[in-house]
Amino acid sequence: MRGMCELLGMSANVPTDICFSFTGLMQRGGRTGPHRDGWGIGFYEGRAVRTFHDPQASADSEIARLIHRYPIKSRIVISHIRRATHGRVCLENTHPFVRELWGRAWTFAHNGKLAGVKRLPVGAFRPIGTTDSEHAFCWMLENVRRQYPRPPARPEGLFRLIEALSGQLAALGTFNLLLSDSRFLFAYCTTNLCWLTRRAPFGKARLLDAEVIVDFERETTPDDVVTVVATRPLTPDEPWHVMSRAEFQIFDDGRPLRPTAAVMEPMP
Amino acid sequence: MRGMCELLGMSANVPTDICFSFTGLMQRGGRTGPHRDGWGIGFYEGRAVRTFHDPQASADSEIARLIHRYPIKSRIVISHIRRATHGRVCLENTHPFVRELWGRAWTFAHNGKLAGVKRLPVGAFRPIGTTDSEHAFCWMLENVRRQYPRPPARPEGLFRLIEALSGQLAALGTFNLLLSDSRFLFAYCTTNLCWLTRRAPFGKARLLDAEVIVDFERETTPDDVVTVVATRPLTPDEPWHVMSRAEFQIFDDGRPLRPTAAVMEPMP
Repeated sequence: MRGMCELLGMSANVPTDICFSFTGLMQRGGRTGPHRDGWGIGFYEGRAVRTFHDPQASADSEIARLIHRYPIKSRIVISHIRRATHGRVCLENTHPFVRELWGRAWTFAHNGKLAGVKRLPVGAFRPIGTTDSEHAFCWMLENVRRQYPRPPARPEGLFRLIEALSGQLAALGTFNLLLSDSRFLFAYCTTNLCWLTRRAPFGKARLLDAEVIVDFERETTPDDVVTVVATRPLTPDEPWHVMSRAEFQIFDDGRPLRPTAAVMEPMP
Repeated sequence: MRGMCELLGMSANVPTDICFSFTGLMQRGGRTGPHRDGWGIGFYEGRAVRTFHDPQASADSEIARLIHRYPIKSRIVISHIRRATHGRVCLENTHPFVRELWGRAWTFAHNGKLAGVKRLPVGAFRPIGTTDSEHAFCWMLENVRRQYPRPPARPEGLFRLIEALSGQLAALGTFNLLLSDSRFLFAYCTTNLCWLTRRAPFGKARLLDAEVIVDFERETTPDDVVTVVATRPLTPDEPWHVMSRAEFQIFDDGRPLRPTAAVMEPMP
């Protein structure tokens, strides 16, 4: 698993505080840690998304500190922690990527390689950086817009389209995806993606080997529902749904919309 | 001047540290100060832009602290400090606004009112929030894309187009603009915009009544050139170029491209 990027997403039915404590990162604090290749995070607020990108390790701790102290309430969060060097490390190449479609911010984070993806035609959405991922995002969004110049009244066709486009990209290699249109959180799995739905009261979840603690606080009403999606199970003692190859899931208001496959037993 | 928004921009020939010390803001720190309506800032890094938006006063100090401590080097900066309440205060309505065109991030900040601007047709670029300003930006960018589906080899026609579009918007009311395509910084003035070109070594500039100190540090080679654009002169003792109504200026590598009008005498 070493050398892979970590994806982390959240869908909730109410704006939820999510505090990221990059404790290990902040202790190491240098250019030698595993996160030297940057990370990024997007918090939705309505139809807009607030993003923080950190291509440089030396700066990590400042932004991590901000996010730790700054109570950002959001219903949808998408984060990407880069662990391997493929492509130049710079802001332009740092996930998540954002584009506007239908007057909504769309946010995309991907893990995996896609051979020949740059041969896919992009339309009006053009990559700013040089990554395969951003090219895939632009291609995907152009196809969504061609089929739906306006947001569809009912989303089922959109769901099928995003699943089909994800399948086409997955045929080029590895395509673990987190995507949002500001209302839904979409997840597509090739190799590593799992999720867990929690209800209040929320505790802490420790990302097993990435020194990231996700802390859900404040929102503790009995009706709160929060789903966390991650590259690997974050906790050893909860029943994570481990997604299978080519599995696609949609989260709305913290809940999965599609029937769920087998639940992984809690690890002993 | 009270109740207006402040625009602040920078164009430089080398990536320049720009430290914003929101000292007055951080001392007041509450919802009672003049900045309670939010502010935003975008720092270009290559063709991408790093933005920070703060719609809420209570959060201001955290992001202001980050920007103060975090040495962001940039060749182009655009900032907007909102001082008046028109439109709901939320992330979606907080300048600067960003869209991608030609694989470059375009950033837009505006001050003024534009009567009936929402009757102008927008194409593929749609507003995410409800402000007149974002609508104007979407209309402007759609017109740029229609005329230039690809970036022009020579920029003179683009300059004329942006000036003409700015003039059409200004006919609807007040249009003080800062805009960038990641290479150039464009400024259009209806009522209040001025600029000053400085060369190394740089000192401090105090924004006269906004408790904002702009501090240019580190970059002190003799070849450095930095232009600052602001709603009003930032300093009492330097020769600011006060732009006149309908004046348009383009900054490239820290220098104005168009012949400059009369220079305001330093204030006594």
